[in-house]
Amino acid sequence: MDSVSFMTPKEARQMIRDNQWIKPTAGVASGYTQANLVILPKKYAFDFLLFCQRNPKPCPILDVTDMGDPHPPLFAPDADLRVDLPKYRVYRYGELVEEPTDLLHLWNEDLVAFLIGCSFTFEKALLQGGIPVRHIEAGCNVPMYKTNINCKKAGPFEGPMVVSMRPIPEHLVVKAVEITSRYPNVHGAPVHIGNPSSIGIRDLENPDFGDRVVVGENEVPVFWACGVTPQAVAMHVKPEIMITHAPGHMFITDVLDENLR
Amino acid sequence: MDSVSFMTPKEARQMIRDNQWIKPTAGVASGYTQANLVILPKKYAFDFLLFCQRNPKPCPILDVTDMGDPHPPLFAPDADLRVDLPKYRVYRYGELVEEPTDLLHLWNEDLVAFLIGCSFTFEKALLQGGIPVRHIEAGCNVPMYKTNINCKKAGPFEGPMVVSMRPIPEHLVVKAVEITSRYPNVHGAPVHIGNPSSIGIRDLENPDFGDRVVVGENEVPVFWACGVTPQAVAMHVKPEIMITHAPGHMFITDVLDENLR
Repeated sequence: MDSVSFMTPKEARQMIRDNQWIKPTAGVASGYTQANLVILPKKYAFDFLLFCQRNPKPCPILDVTDMGDPHPPLFAPDADLRVDLPKYRVYRYGELVEEPTDLLHLWNEDLVAFLIGCSFTFEKALLQGGIPVRHIEAGCNVPMYKTNINCKKAGPFEGPMVVSMRPIPEHLVVKAVEITSRYPNVHGAPVHIGNPSSIGIRDLENPDFGDRVVVGENEVPVFWACGVTPQAVAMHVKPEIMITHAPGHMFITDVLDENLR
Repeated sequence: MDSVSFMTPKEARQMIRDNQWIKPTAGVASGYTQANLVILPKKYAFDFLLFCQRNPKPCPILDVTDMGDPHPPLFAPDADLRVDLPKYRVYRYGELVEEPTDLLHLWNEDLVAFLIGCSFTFEKALLQGGIPVRHIEAGCNVPMYKTNINCKKAGPFEGPMVVSMRPIPEHLVVKAVEITSRYPNVHGAPVHIGNPSSIGIRDLENPDFGDRVVVGENEVPVFWACGVTPQAVAMHVKPEIMITHAPGHMFITDVLDENLR
């Protein structure tokens, strides 16, 4: 653990705000919950919030800002979502147009920001429970797949659930379910255990997003709902503007992982 | 248990739809979750949903309809919220104007319906766990109090949390916490145990809503967040129209209490 691990969330966000940390946030302010960011125009806000309410496993809402207000009231009221993430992605009509380090030139009264739970929290709990997490061991991205599980539609937002896969040793599968069940705000228990084709995944070797990982002998592929789902669903609507965190460049909240349970 | 206890939710709703049951729903379709209803114009929908998201203990959202759609997609897609409750209350600018048995004359494309968890579910679990529930024994309403705990504001919606009180024998307090903790969708664990004045309740003998109950020797007053909170908060905004269930005349969902956990 290096010094950024021991920073408070406030110190970490100040460093990021000052553009002194333009890289992924894994390990920064260790122990504090990190969140996915989705920003949409207010005309989509009700339907998107409703989509998340109807699909809490892939879209666990942690916090939502008031219209035009960049401060997340529950998870970090002092933070400013326009400047406190290391890197953002800006999409116009579904096309990536910019990867800025702040949103000061883009933010306006018409925008609403959503913070959505991220799997960092439960992966840490798995590791602390003695359960290996393959893509962390391998130093790559978690493999993610589109499934045949349809999310519940809300207004224009609809689409398949995206899942992430972690190979778990057979004798630890129950424990992995138990541990992740305790974290409903970060995807909770798995959505499927064992048979990829049952949820419409044809080829485990070819994830739709992220990297391939090896499933060893006496290991079972275990699938959790994935926070890429709400982004994919929003993208599909091609809103005039949509802003997200850049992959891995998350928002660091004031809430301890332990208090998220 | 009489015959209405054994009805399916669908049968019970048909009986109610046919105006053959215009009375409280306690005990009807036993085992199935009953819900509070709040209907508001769509211009309030985002802020009200946000208020509930920020205050999940008093306002546990079970389901929200699409704008203008009277069918709750998650909890009873075949049901029709315009006709499937025994009695409604209609408020205009905060004033009760009507108590109809259906909403066919009032429903329009501008309305959104919210189903909110109700304490019936956890009270049944308490009883099954061997924990007495005083107001049920006494055949009266649960006592409810305004507190000094402020809800988190969202748009125009703000106000104090309302709590319900149940006297629990000292040796069963821990068990009561354990049991209700398992039901976060129906107010979950208590918000306070023991000292009414700590949460701004001056006189336990004079509840703000409902009926007084006796706190016996070796009993502790235990306070849970109450579903009256979102109604009180919405009423305070004095919307041009707001519709709720009549007290005790709840909506019967297709979801088993056991599956709400």
